Amino acid sequence: MPTPAAALERELLARIPLARAMDLQVQNWDGASLTLAVPLAPNINDKGCAFGGSLTSLMTLASWGVVELALRERGLDCDVYVQDSTVRYRAPVWGDFSAQAQLAAGESFEDFFATLAARGKARLSLNAQVPLTDGSPAASLSSRFVAIVRAAD
Amino acid sequence: MPTPAAALERELLARIPLARAMDLQVQNWDGASLTLAVPLAPNINDKGCAFGGSLTSLMTLASWGVVELALRERGLDCDVYVQDSTVRYRAPVWGDFSAQAQLAAGESFEDFFATLAARGKARLSLNAQVPLTDGSPAASLSSRFVAIVRAAD
Repeated sequence: MPTPAAALERELLARIPLARAMDLQVQNWDGASLTLAVPLAPNINDKGCAFGGSLTSLMTLASWGVVELALRERGLDCDVYVQDSTVRYRAPVWGDFSAQAQLAAGESFEDFFATLAARGKARLSLNAQVPLTDGSPAASLSSRFVAIVRAAD
Repeated sequence: MPTPAAALERELLARIPLARAMDLQVQNWDGASLTLAVPLAPNINDKGCAFGGSLTSLMTLASWGVVELALRERGLDCDVYVQDSTVRYRAPVWGDFSAQAQLAAGESFEDFFATLAARGKARLSLNAQVPLTDGSPAASLSSRFVAIVRAAD
């Protein structure tokens, strides 16, 4: 049996061509925080540093993955959509990079799952960041997701 | 001589691997608004509709392209960086799609070029959207860019 994180990586690569083009890897999932990593070469821009679209895509996928993996751990089958997000580009990234995502301050999985059980639909805010080698964020993303319980066929 | 828009397309495809993976085309540039188009297949997600990362990347590149082409038309050599952006995902996109970008309301190229001439650096806000076939936006992006005049070597 692959771990849930390994299964997620396989699905992302199989079903999202751009994740494959980015050469995405799931690096770590600890039940609260998900880290995705990519090499620089396929994610470079015209200036020789990381392409903004790759930074944002990786942070969005890491955030989506946190919601998706948390749902799977509880055996819930939902569609998870990103609704909106805000990204800040703070510094150029000149090497391979990773994005780490977790719940935003003030959010809890308990409230999220309680609302989902009661209404079949719930929202969740997440934060993600691409750290520089000194740990300071090169880019950060705040996003809101909605999960909708899939109707049984 | 290729048109400035054709030259931009060639550069994007040559220098940004992800633009190539997305199969990006420059569709139109009228001096104020830039439209970039992609087929759905390389930009699909796990649900069979457009991947959020592709929507955001295309809108960001279209916005960047407006600034870049406006600068080139005036013979200015600048580095153009995106600083921050906010994206709203409103409806899924089930076919090939395009992103159109233009200056945000209240912005003017005149002010931008005046500031650039005076200070060697200027900021500009843009809007971009991915229209559905009925013209309503499936996704929209507001972003801020900074242009910095390149020092002559």
